[in-house]
Amino acid sequence: MENRKIRVGITHGDMNGIGYEIILKAFEDDAMFDLCTPIVYGSPKVATYYRKTIGVETNFSIINQAQQATDDKLYILNCCNDDAKVDIGQSTPEAGQNAMLALERVVSDYKNGLIDVLVTAPINKKNIQSDVFCFPGHTEYLEACLGNGDKALMILLNEHLRVALATGHIPVRDIASAITSDVLEEKTALFSNSLRNDFGIEKPRIAVLALNPHAGDDGLIGKEELETINPTISKMREQGILCFGPYAADGFFGSGNYTHFDGVLAMYHDQGLAAFKALSMDDGVNFTAGLPVVRTSPDHGTAYDIAGKGIASAQSLRSAIYTAIDIFRNREREKECSANPLRKLYYNKRDDSDKLKLDSIE
Amino acid sequence: MENRKIRVGITHGDMNGIGYEIILKAFEDDAMFDLCTPIVYGSPKVATYYRKTIGVETNFSIINQAQQATDDKLYILNCCNDDAKVDIGQSTPEAGQNAMLALERVVSDYKNGLIDVLVTAPINKKNIQSDVFCFPGHTEYLEACLGNGDKALMILLNEHLRVALATGHIPVRDIASAITSDVLEEKTALFSNSLRNDFGIEKPRIAVLALNPHAGDDGLIGKEELETINPTISKMREQGILCFGPYAADGFFGSGNYTHFDGVLAMYHDQGLAAFKALSMDDGVNFTAGLPVVRTSPDHGTAYDIAGKGIASAQSLRSAIYTAIDIFRNREREKECSANPLRKLYYNKRDDSDKLKLDSIE
Repeated sequence: MENRKIRVGITHGDMNGIGYEIILKAFEDDAMFDLCTPIVYGSPKVATYYRKTIGVETNFSIINQAQQATDDKLYILNCCNDDAKVDIGQSTPEAGQNAMLALERVVSDYKNGLIDVLVTAPINKKNIQSDVFCFPGHTEYLEACLGNGDKALMILLNEHLRVALATGHIPVRDIASAITSDVLEEKTALFSNSLRNDFGIEKPRIAVLALNPHAGDDGLIGKEELETINPTISKMREQGILCFGPYAADGFFGSGNYTHFDGVLAMYHDQGLAAFKALSMDDGVNFTAGLPVVRTSPDHGTAYDIAGKGIASAQSLRSAIYTAIDIFRNREREKECSANPLRKLYYNKRDDSDKLKLDSIE
Repeated sequence: MENRKIRVGITHGDMNGIGYEIILKAFEDDAMFDLCTPIVYGSPKVATYYRKTIGVETNFSIINQAQQATDDKLYILNCCNDDAKVDIGQSTPEAGQNAMLALERVVSDYKNGLIDVLVTAPINKKNIQSDVFCFPGHTEYLEACLGNGDKALMILLNEHLRVALATGHIPVRDIASAITSDVLEEKTALFSNSLRNDFGIEKPRIAVLALNPHAGDDGLIGKEELETINPTISKMREQGILCFGPYAADGFFGSGNYTHFDGVLAMYHDQGLAAFKALSMDDGVNFTAGLPVVRTSPDHGTAYDIAGKGIASAQSLRSAIYTAIDIFRNREREKECSANPLRKLYYNKRDDSDKLKLDSIE
């Protein structure tokens, strides 16, 4: 594997949120350039505005094509309307349009091999909606644009915990019907593959959370455990995937049981994420597994309430960048390791006295 | 208020779980008897068995009537079948029956004024079911037995956080339809009253969590926020209850926003409890607010997997006992303070030169 710098495409997200602040803060330290060549898809004008407002010293070079990014520094690729007006802490249609422009450009550059991995700063899911973006979030958009038919799996992770979601951005009203055997099989398999290929865990152990409180208490509080989740876990185990459970979510997180597993499959968004974020403080990363592209993001939103104040923490974005790089390298290594498997040696067996002679060439 | 010791009735719960272990451990330290007179409703035989198995030194006296508990020590009130057989870590019908016997006796003793507060060790919700107990848990049973028509509110608390549940032990499938304006109004009012009377907070601030992921993202992921939760919050605010939100659960717990509120109203069990338990480690307490009786319990279950091994922590039970005592005292103080309000002084106003003469008796 060639040890070249990994090219990280970073979209600016909603320019009225904390996107630019965390990007500029993340690259205050030059050490980041030892790891990667970062290209921010956004507006140099807006970046300059935030640099002044927040008072960070981060330098950057302005480019118009990803090919121009060659040195060890931060690049901002201009792909926004030149008259983009910043309205700190406000949701504006303009911010939505510019978030979309950055996303479209980074997807196109990825398709043309100009960037290796994708890190997205938070968007506002309301103002970005349009004819070309009618998705509840990045995950679903990228699944449609770059999935080649593959399904995405949302994984939230920090150093101690990886939580994947069986269902994502859907109303609570629809969760129970969305938890089918097919969905659980698909997500468990995806998760297991990702833990192996993306995180380098040979035989990953997955904890499956229950859907209902107290894991349904043997059918007293909901039947989905008995009818759907238990049988699927058994089936997946027979197929060699090490999954266990279902575990009642509250006790599972309260007892620290999660430390015994390589991954936790939560049944729905808030079940997994409320506990994950309570535990992860500010270094959580959102990783979209299952797609050919490696995409990560910080695990927080636009944070309009603290935008422009200089108090946002860049830790989650920094972790997102490290994670994307790690996963990209793990995938490359995995590809390399499995590219030329040892050739099997065949020979004709004649009788029981026959021994395999490795020195003979047949 | 008379400063006598508070009589704490403690039910043994499921005798094959960690109930006896945590009770014996909680009263290893004599200092507990400065605070209360504890009466365990259970089986002295089983208690003796666990004392030996686990190797704790806690002494206790055996009684048959709560009236016999007079000194500073641990009492075990014999209210079980004498041939009760312990089967460590197993769910048996016998354990269910004995758990029920203890519950029935403590309820009757409470009604007769023999105990002041009630602390329950964990039961197994499956083996306890019978003609007299067909409830998903203690909370619902006590609401029926001791509620006098009042509704219960489940509150989980530790030193830093109080989480109440708008819906309790119901399947995820039924949550969305259970979140009505009436339910939210009732629970918010109950919570506010409890924070004031039980916890002594003059003007409690309540955070209301959203039902759907990302608080519904303005209707993109579910309409309940727009149609039910927002209007109810406004209405309750107009009625003088300081409630705010709705907040997306994951960000709320992740950002530490919960530290700014006296209480958090979660929409459903796992939303509130997975995060609460992740944060509370082993000192969480479950308090049943809204009922005339003060009832608390540890926030864990029977823990069959570690039963009889001597490794269970009594911290949560200890906190449950302290909490019950605190709440009982707060309620007494509240009663005392509001028993004889200052008499209003009325007088007939004659003309503008008239002054209120406090020394005159009319």
